[in-house]
Amino acid sequence: MGKKRLILITNDDGFEARGYRRLINLMRQYGDVIAISSVESMSAMSHAITMKVPLRTRLVRKEDGLVEYVTNGTPVDNVKMGKHLFLDRMPDLVVSGINHGSNAAINIIYSGTVAAALEAAIDHIPAIGFSVNEYGADIEMTHVDEYVKKITEKVIKEGLPEGIALNVNFPKYSAEPIKGIKVVRQAKATWRETYEERTDPYGQKYYWMGGVFLDGDGRPDTDEKALAENYVAVVPVKIDFTAHEWIEKMNFDD
Amino acid sequence: MGKKRLILITNDDGFEARGYRRLINLMRQYGDVIAISSVESMSAMSHAITMKVPLRTRLVRKEDGLVEYVTNGTPVDNVKMGKHLFLDRMPDLVVSGINHGSNAAINIIYSGTVAAALEAAIDHIPAIGFSVNEYGADIEMTHVDEYVKKITEKVIKEGLPEGIALNVNFPKYSAEPIKGIKVVRQAKATWRETYEERTDPYGQKYYWMGGVFLDGDGRPDTDEKALAENYVAVVPVKIDFTAHEWIEKMNFDD
Repeated sequence: MGKKRLILITNDDGFEARGYRRLINLMRQYGDVIAISSVESMSAMSHAITMKVPLRTRLVRKEDGLVEYVTNGTPVDNVKMGKHLFLDRMPDLVVSGINHGSNAAINIIYSGTVAAALEAAIDHIPAIGFSVNEYGADIEMTHVDEYVKKITEKVIKEGLPEGIALNVNFPKYSAEPIKGIKVVRQAKATWRETYEERTDPYGQKYYWMGGVFLDGDGRPDTDEKALAENYVAVVPVKIDFTAHEWIEKMNFDD
Repeated sequence: MGKKRLILITNDDGFEARGYRRLINLMRQYGDVIAISSVESMSAMSHAITMKVPLRTRLVRKEDGLVEYVTNGTPVDNVKMGKHLFLDRMPDLVVSGINHGSNAAINIIYSGTVAAALEAAIDHIPAIGFSVNEYGADIEMTHVDEYVKKITEKVIKEGLPEGIALNVNFPKYSAEPIKGIKVVRQAKATWRETYEERTDPYGQKYYWMGGVFLDGDGRPDTDEKALAENYVAVVPVKIDFTAHEWIEKMNFDD
């Protein structure tokens, strides 16, 4: 690739997903694109990396301004391979998505989409994870283009602080236009899991996980609240699990 | 199970791992134990959950004070199944490990061990992830027992703040005794990945990921620093990716 801006794109819904194809098309106006995704869906793979089986890659497209690979890796594997296997320099921007389903609130920790953006942030590459708050292969996404472009252009122009990525969640499509963008915090909202027991044709029991989403966070400045009010929710995110406020208060010497 | 203290144990090295068996034995003195682990290693599975294949479980042991299951799930699946499938009440304590290998610094985000503890913290269950800073199936662990007990007893006695878990890393075994416990922050230290290319017997290329660990964090109060000085590193951790300090500074309206 030449000296144009270099944009790495991945997702966690597999390389055929509507949101991923849409994101690739939207990003080509901003530079050369390398798109790396998995053959199968990698939903809920979080920041997992592949260690038990070898990684396989396949070049599926190479045309002016776009190189596309498919792999058996997770979203984080795909960013790592982009950085250290496919490219001879770091990309200028990493974008992930557009995910079919919310990555707001607690969903962020299960999300391969946001994990991919955070993986880029480790190397101080500006990175954005995009998600739409609606599940399904055929969800409507026309309403997000304007905001994908607006946020991407701002990040291209101004960069992001070191180690910071953006977790961007769009409201599901509705007749009402999106009201705007809010920069907010991750809501304290969680899932309560349920397990459906079934019996296979061989008489063995197995389980499918399900759950209900519980938003118990009443604060006005959360991603969940912004989505509910038809705003785009932008959360600046970083990899630091430390609960800094508790370091000084804990003492194991006594 | 009765009304004794109920302790859920999991890990990410598989149910036969030395560190896991050791942790189960250590915990039985504190209450009734339910141990749930995977048949295979789940290293580097992060906070992944199983959605593409059904979950399978098998009861492998039931004796006074100990019930043990093996599953095909990730560490987070195992905690979720403990909470919502196997038990009719929340456990009083969740402990994970003892992991063979460090979960300090950036390793925390790949770690199934710490993810399991964080998964418990979502429901405000006191939880601890234990890891030793040495890889290998047969590593020496006798030096950690005293500190596993000390930290566990303190958590049992005093609890933990809501939503907070402990990421505990032990130095590798050495002739020098451990110097004590330090409560510290997650170091800014990362991996630089490498990919080893091989060719399979059928002529197809594949890759194994490797890497070198780069500790560029010079601060004195990090987990890496504590381990290097032969201290136990305790980091209070929580699930909140928000970079709070940047919320006010970002504005997408202009």
